[in-house]
Amino acid sequence: MLAGSETTATNGVTIHQYYATQDMGRIFSDADGELLFVPQLGRLSIDTELGRLSIAPREIAVIPRGIRFRVALPDGEARGYVCENHGAMFRLPDLGPIGANGLANPRDFLTPVAWYEERDEKTEIVQKFMGRLWATTLDHSPLDVVAWHGNLAPYKYDLTRFNTLGTVSFDHPDPSIFTVLTSPTSTPGVANIDFVCIADRWMVAEHTFRPPWFHRNVMNECMGLIEGAYDAKQGGFEPGGMSLHGMMAAHGPDRPSTERAMHDGLQPRKVAGSMAVMFETQQVLLPTRHALASPRLQPDYDSVWNDLGKTFTGATR
Amino acid sequence: MLAGSETTATNGVTIHQYYATQDMGRIFSDADGELLFVPQLGRLSIDTELGRLSIAPREIAVIPRGIRFRVALPDGEARGYVCENHGAMFRLPDLGPIGANGLANPRDFLTPVAWYEERDEKTEIVQKFMGRLWATTLDHSPLDVVAWHGNLAPYKYDLTRFNTLGTVSFDHPDPSIFTVLTSPTSTPGVANIDFVCIADRWMVAEHTFRPPWFHRNVMNECMGLIEGAYDAKQGGFEPGGMSLHGMMAAHGPDRPSTERAMHDGLQPRKVAGSMAVMFETQQVLLPTRHALASPRLQPDYDSVWNDLGKTFTGATR
Amino acid sequence: MLAGSETTATNGVTIHQYYATQDMGRIFSDADGELLFVPQLGRLSIDTELGRLSIAPREIAVIPRGIRFRVALPDGEARGYVCENHGAMFRLPDLGPIGANGLANPRDFLTPVAWYEERDEKTEIVQKFMGRLWATTLDHSPLDVVAWHGNLAPYKYDLTRFNTLGTVSFDHPDPSIFTVLTSPTSTPGVANIDFVCIADRWMVAEHTFRPPWFHRNVMNECMGLIEGAYDAKQGGFEPGGMSLHGMMAAHGPDRPSTERAMHDGLQPRKVAGSMAVMFETQQVLLPTRHALASPRLQPDYDSVWNDLGKTFTGATR
Amino acid sequence: MLAGSETTATNGVTIHQYYATQDMGRIFSDADGELLFVPQLGRLSIDTELGRLSIAPREIAVIPRGIRFRVALPDGEARGYVCENHGAMFRLPDLGPIGANGLANPRDFLTPVAWYEERDEKTEIVQKFMGRLWATTLDHSPLDVVAWHGNLAPYKYDLTRFNTLGTVSFDHPDPSIFTVLTSPTSTPGVANIDFVCIADRWMVAEHTFRPPWFHRNVMNECMGLIEGAYDAKQGGFEPGGMSLHGMMAAHGPDRPSTERAMHDGLQPRKVAGSMAVMFETQQVLLPTRHALASPRLQPDYDSVWNDLGKTFTGATR
Amino acid sequence: MLAGSETTATNGVTIHQYYATQDMGRIFSDADGELLFVPQLGRLSIDTELGRLSIAPREIAVIPRGIRFRVALPDGEARGYVCENHGAMFRLPDLGPIGANGLANPRDFLTPVAWYEERDEKTEIVQKFMGRLWATTLDHSPLDVVAWHGNLAPYKYDLTRFNTLGTVSFDHPDPSIFTVLTSPTSTPGVANIDFVCIADRWMVAEHTFRPPWFHRNVMNECMGLIEGAYDAKQGGFEPGGMSLHGMMAAHGPDRPSTERAMHDGLQPRKVAGSMAVMFETQQVLLPTRHALASPRLQPDYDSVWNDLGKTFTGATR
Amino acid sequence: MLAGSETTATNGVTIHQYYATQDMGRIFSDADGELLFVPQLGRLSIDTELGRLSIAPREIAVIPRGIRFRVALPDGEARGYVCENHGAMFRLPDLGPIGANGLANPRDFLTPVAWYEERDEKTEIVQKFMGRLWATTLDHSPLDVVAWHGNLAPYKYDLTRFNTLGTVSFDHPDPSIFTVLTSPTSTPGVANIDFVCIADRWMVAEHTFRPPWFHRNVMNECMGLIEGAYDAKQGGFEPGGMSLHGMMAAHGPDRPSTERAMHDGLQPRKVAGSMAVMFETQQVLLPTRHALASPRLQPDYDSVWNDLGKTFTGATR
Repeated sequence: MLAGSETTATNGVTIHQYYATQDMGRIFSDADGELLFVPQLGRLSIDTELGRLSIAPREIAVIPRGIRFRVALPDGEARGYVCENHGAMFRLPDLGPIGANGLANPRDFLTPVAWYEERDEKTEIVQKFMGRLWATTLDHSPLDVVAWHGNLAPYKYDLTRFNTLGTVSFDHPDPSIFTVLTSPTSTPGVANIDFVCIADRWMVAEHTFRPPWFHRNVMNECMGLIEGAYDAKQGGFEPGGMSLHGMMAAHGPDRPSTERAMHDGLQPRKVAGSMAVMFETQQVLLPTRHALASPRLQPDYDSVWNDLGKTFTGATR
Repeated sequence: MLAGSETTATNGVTIHQYYATQDMGRIFSDADGELLFVPQLGRLSIDTELGRLSIAPREIAVIPRGIRFRVALPDGEARGYVCENHGAMFRLPDLGPIGANGLANPRDFLTPVAWYEERDEKTEIVQKFMGRLWATTLDHSPLDVVAWHGNLAPYKYDLTRFNTLGTVSFDHPDPSIFTVLTSPTSTPGVANIDFVCIADRWMVAEHTFRPPWFHRNVMNECMGLIEGAYDAKQGGFEPGGMSLHGMMAAHGPDRPSTERAMHDGLQPRKVAGSMAVMFETQQVLLPTRHALASPRLQPDYDSVWNDLGKTFTGATR
Repeated sequence: MLAGSETTATNGVTIHQYYATQDMGRIFSDADGELLFVPQLGRLSIDTELGRLSIAPREIAVIPRGIRFRVALPDGEARGYVCENHGAMFRLPDLGPIGANGLANPRDFLTPVAWYEERDEKTEIVQKFMGRLWATTLDHSPLDVVAWHGNLAPYKYDLTRFNTLGTVSFDHPDPSIFTVLTSPTSTPGVANIDFVCIADRWMVAEHTFRPPWFHRNVMNECMGLIEGAYDAKQGGFEPGGMSLHGMMAAHGPDRPSTERAMHDGLQPRKVAGSMAVMFETQQVLLPTRHALASPRLQPDYDSVWNDLGKTFTGATR
Repeated sequence: MLAGSETTATNGVTIHQYYATQDMGRIFSDADGELLFVPQLGRLSIDTELGRLSIAPREIAVIPRGIRFRVALPDGEARGYVCENHGAMFRLPDLGPIGANGLANPRDFLTPVAWYEERDEKTEIVQKFMGRLWATTLDHSPLDVVAWHGNLAPYKYDLTRFNTLGTVSFDHPDPSIFTVLTSPTSTPGVANIDFVCIADRWMVAEHTFRPPWFHRNVMNECMGLIEGAYDAKQGGFEPGGMSLHGMMAAHGPDRPSTERAMHDGLQPRKVAGSMAVMFETQQVLLPTRHALASPRLQPDYDSVWNDLGKTFTGATR
Repeated sequence: MLAGSETTATNGVTIHQYYATQDMGRIFSDADGELLFVPQLGRLSIDTELGRLSIAPREIAVIPRGIRFRVALPDGEARGYVCENHGAMFRLPDLGPIGANGLANPRDFLTPVAWYEERDEKTEIVQKFMGRLWATTLDHSPLDVVAWHGNLAPYKYDLTRFNTLGTVSFDHPDPSIFTVLTSPTSTPGVANIDFVCIADRWMVAEHTFRPPWFHRNVMNECMGLIEGAYDAKQGGFEPGGMSLHGMMAAHGPDRPSTERAMHDGLQPRKVAGSMAVMFETQQVLLPTRHALASPRLQPDYDSVWNDLGKTFTGATR
Repeated sequence: MLAGSETTATNGVTIHQYYATQDMGRIFSDADGELLFVPQLGRLSIDTELGRLSIAPREIAVIPRGIRFRVALPDGEARGYVCENHGAMFRLPDLGPIGANGLANPRDFLTPVAWYEERDEKTEIVQKFMGRLWATTLDHSPLDVVAWHGNLAPYKYDLTRFNTLGTVSFDHPDPSIFTVLTSPTSTPGVANIDFVCIADRWMVAEHTFRPPWFHRNVMNECMGLIEGAYDAKQGGFEPGGMSLHGMMAAHGPDRPSTERAMHDGLQPRKVAGSMAVMFETQQVLLPTRHALASPRLQPDYDSVWNDLGKTFTGATR
């Protein structure tokens, strides 16, 4: 666990990073929330009670709360992010004026067909419940569901199928326009968590400072990088890393990105070969002790904004 | 009046076209709805009880229900469209995942400062009420409001300030993404009328048939053209003209536009120098007898789709 | 029938005036809506399927849609208003910031105890359905309901128990603050019909023009007078009469009331001994042919505002 | 801090009292909520990123979450209350049947024009985040915002412009009728916090015990006094003091106020020269250790109700 | 057309009966609403743009607004009901306390796989639009859609899969408990139309008059019979017939059914071999002139209630 | 206290069991929530400020938050359950398609008439507030309320009047169909707590495994037994006991119940003479230390599912 909000049985979010070199021998299920897997390195083969899913980097999978599963690593090594959503189940955002299609399209979400194994051997089950882990051993594999119906099922999605929208005139829209899945709260407009994907796209805005502008805001932004370089960071943000900007912490593009944006021309430019993701929430994400103690913590994180020169040349009042 | 829906005191819409060569001598007000002016030729100087507005083509103005006004023609000639909205007052659409900014931005809507005239002379007032016109004569000008407060005020907007969003990856979004103003109903997602503006923008979609696709839908689409050429019509749709596609009437780009879209490359292309508008509603718009009797009616309107060749080359089932 | 809006089976309103000198011999029920009785002269004894109600001027009764009843006149003569509500059933308005008590209090609404008659004699029933009257004859009285439960029941209310709120500082509030009962629509804030009562109260506003100000608005205001004089009309509005100000028709206090309000002092004043009611709706109320042909129609109604002098003495701009 | 509720990043409230004799040298911002300032003694000059506000007793100011500001004391001394709102931003309450105007009117809220300072000198910033204070030092003043647009801006309001409504017939309405600003929750009717102002007004209720009646209720009522005497307390509640009645704690007017209300006549009476405020919430407000240790705590607070005689003289059942 | 309500482009319902002995040669589509087919005699083979459906009596099919289709009669003869829904699309009702399963289960609704025909021959299309029929001829079959995605698709449902719930203790529930599909309005609890199915089930209520009780209500009930005998009618209601009870028209079981219910024991009884359906709406359904002129109209319909004896034996008051 | 959820002043639930042999001498009130009493043994006489209630096993009573009361034991001994509801007040569930009647009917809830005692003697009051108990002593009984109006009153309900609905065709519905009272949250469909009653009823489902099926789900199910045997447990669940199945803990009928359900016929069967209740919530209920230390805790609770044989006989894939 890297960071988490205040959490109840019906609200909150926890962000995890994983790195593994070995298949899970046992079965896991999470009574505390659904799990969104975002692999950055190595495929995951996920056998669940309701069927089998395989995902690779640039894909995601969601395992519902309480569903039992087991993960194997076809590539022998795996790294990535997991978002544990304690609130309302992820769903597609209402599109508003975007209309009938756009962003993540429903037809691209894939649910497994039923599959089962009939194994009469000792099988350990670990369940997460109220933030703790509980284990027991059965005399058979619980992945023995022969058939199922309903809609509380695991699913996968290929992020490269995301229909990215953006400005085709001027200005830099809010990153909410990249929302793949959202966990709403009972307050319209305030999500428990939004999962956002920043992928290949054209940048064509005219009369505009194109990178994400400098801002403080009410959201807590936890970003990960799947591959390539994020367009607001020319260094220091590696694939597999994470950044966290808490509520009202000011941030923006680093100095090189800023200067490039100020001086380069504004012809159409294709951003290709990179993919960043963001877990964004109005609930404050507190880093864990484990995260704060990591040798890879960047204590001088804010130095990327050093030497940003003053560009204000005076104004007559 | 060109076309109108079934109308009650609290719902419905009527679309008008105007052409004038002379200032209004008298005062007008409309108890049946608010009036959205969309000039296509010639400026309008609108003196209202709450102040003065001047709009030119590529701008719009909205006069609230019941507000008295008088229009003069600084250019001596004027042509354009008027949308009479009998339903809920126009407002900005909720942006949904577009976020905090985008489309028409609130700061670009301009409301007049108070202004009045003190004219003790005979002044005729014409009021539209329940679809009829009623006239009376006062002994002074009613445009004598010295000061006002509140928010039921006329306003103007420059359509070239519209922050057009669109696809920056693939696919052709719904035209609802161009919504400037909407008159909602009590059913979420069903507008009494949406006012849509299709203006300068970049087209960058890849792997995509870029013009508005061939479709039948539940909306009634009444389009006007302010200037230039609409990208789904290479001929036959002149500035100042209107087209009407009723609910479930199939339509799409004309043959030349279709063929160009199929054979041209998909490099970024700037669409510039044209502006089309659309009045879109789920209520069926019935043409008036006046409109159906016009010598400029296009009885062979659907011939633009003649000779669209079959492109299907067989499929193995 | 005096005036009515466009009406469907689930929306709309019709306003009636009655004058009678004789008991109803037969039974009536209204499938088109519920009936709000507002007597101005003479008591009404209403025998319904669910019990007996008696109301006098300054009281009201509501008979639900479809409930059969019969009215007798204990005073031999009766005059008053009936509001036929085709929309959602009347209910108490949500009080908003007024809080837990105020306006009409639930405990003051009285519902009859069960009562029946066992009369094996020919009884005519007249039912109003889709705007027409239909009659049949039974061989017994249908007021034979021995017991009942549920909440679709007739009720009465004494308007003098209305807890009138108002300004205790300055300004003249909207008459909606006098709402007794409301029939809401599916659009929050837009009522199908509000029933408003303007009764005894203290006027204490300082720095204020105290009568209802001059205005045009989106509502259609149909007023009746139960007794006394309405404080915006010093003449011409008699108990038993009605006034109708349609949507966007300008109106305000008559000349004597205006001048008194401008020149009298602003010490606390008790308004006592008068009671006016208003049926207020956003739907346009069209007078019936019967009403327009009445010899008591006031064709010079607007003359009460003649000779309202100009009080504007110039302003420097 | 005097008292606070259970608090999350999106809900809760904390009440503070301040007393200062010296300008803030540094800059402050609060990531935990917006700040409502209610001065009781001495003016506050608040320089914010978005402009300058000055408020005096009987006025209030609201600084949004995350906005940086600095306070100076033109009068050399200042005392007052601060409500830190961790929930939804303060807004005007929906008026319900009060209608289009009343209570605090939108036009009386004032937002500053843009202002900046260009000071290249060491400036300390203190930010409150998750209940703690964090400091850093910049090499320039952050109050350097040259221009801004949007609606997340500081504002001020003069409480004497509050349009107080109340009973003009009988009964004592709920204090919610004095709501100036409300922070709603996702449950209609349940506020995170209501800010209530009890100011000059006429009392004219007849047949009524006029002071706030004896009650236990679901709200937690935290009151302050700006000036004068509160009409339910003839002693012991000084300007600058606070009282707290927790959920279901019984309370009412003190003995002298009770007796005066029972024996005085009910002629119109102008309450003038006093102003009390209330922070009212359904969340329990727990006093801080600091508050409980104050030498000014009133341990015999409930003695004001001692010797309230029994007035019940028996009833026949 | 048998009966219809007031209808707009977004609201209302029309009920049709059909009898046919011949395949449709042409293509039909309905711009005025979706079509719910309820065959009572003979199968229907429905070829649509999106695939092929075949339904038999005891099954239903829904064709969305604007979808083109062609019907063939595999049994050479067909009779049944069609509900033309002008309002919101049919959907499953919210189940409320029924919970996660029950009534019509989503998994039992079947949507066709894509299918097309490539026929280059003259094909007539008839479209219903604004209550009229419009025809044109194409040079090919429009049922040429090779593939599709989305959710505006035809579907079928087998009514014998309906999970009928009811009382297992006492009392006779509202027929709304048999709702298969509902077309909601913007007023919660008020449907534009409910489609109700009364099929095989156990009757076990104790201390209860088991048939539908005598009532007048706000709904308009239009019933059809697929097979067998309806339990409130021992005669006169034949399969293929329809009954219509308008708003506030009193009705109940016929005399024989009433007497049986009063005198038979209350042991569990399986109702099997009959299926009735109901189209129930709060909008008044007006019979067409065609229906009123039918020789099969039952002018003495109400005679089934003649001779219902009085069972009241007096009560002491 | 046996188990409780995370609790705030406006949300959460605590479940208590009581056993008493002596009348309460003092007065109690609970500021933390309303109290639902479910006696299992012995009557309770509850004297409240608003009147007197007496309940016996198979009845329930609800005392609102903050109401003072005193309980006496007419039978000398009493045992039962108390649900302390910290959230929204219990109300009847919306019935959805069940319609106008069913489940608990409003007319069966009984509220006391006013009653008071005038006792001028020392009386101790204990109040629960923020999870603690606070005591004071008055010189008179506070049960001295002579009359009252409003709707925040105690009430009782006889569970044998519950109109149990269920399947009359096939399948086993969700226990939510037995909901007596619900405390909703601001998220539709998610209750703070549902109180469910499983009483006498007919079981007639065909083609069905009739007992509650084996499941894991998002709810926390806390059951009690009033009398008889629960149909999913043939042993080990005694009247007065409680069971708790936490979120996502798998459970179902015990082995004997399972086997009987698989092998017995499916003729109609009357379940009579037993009554179970359930407190069901989406918030995790944590057992208290007291409960976990009870000598009556069943550590081998899950052994009832031992030896459930495998019934799967293979499937061809």
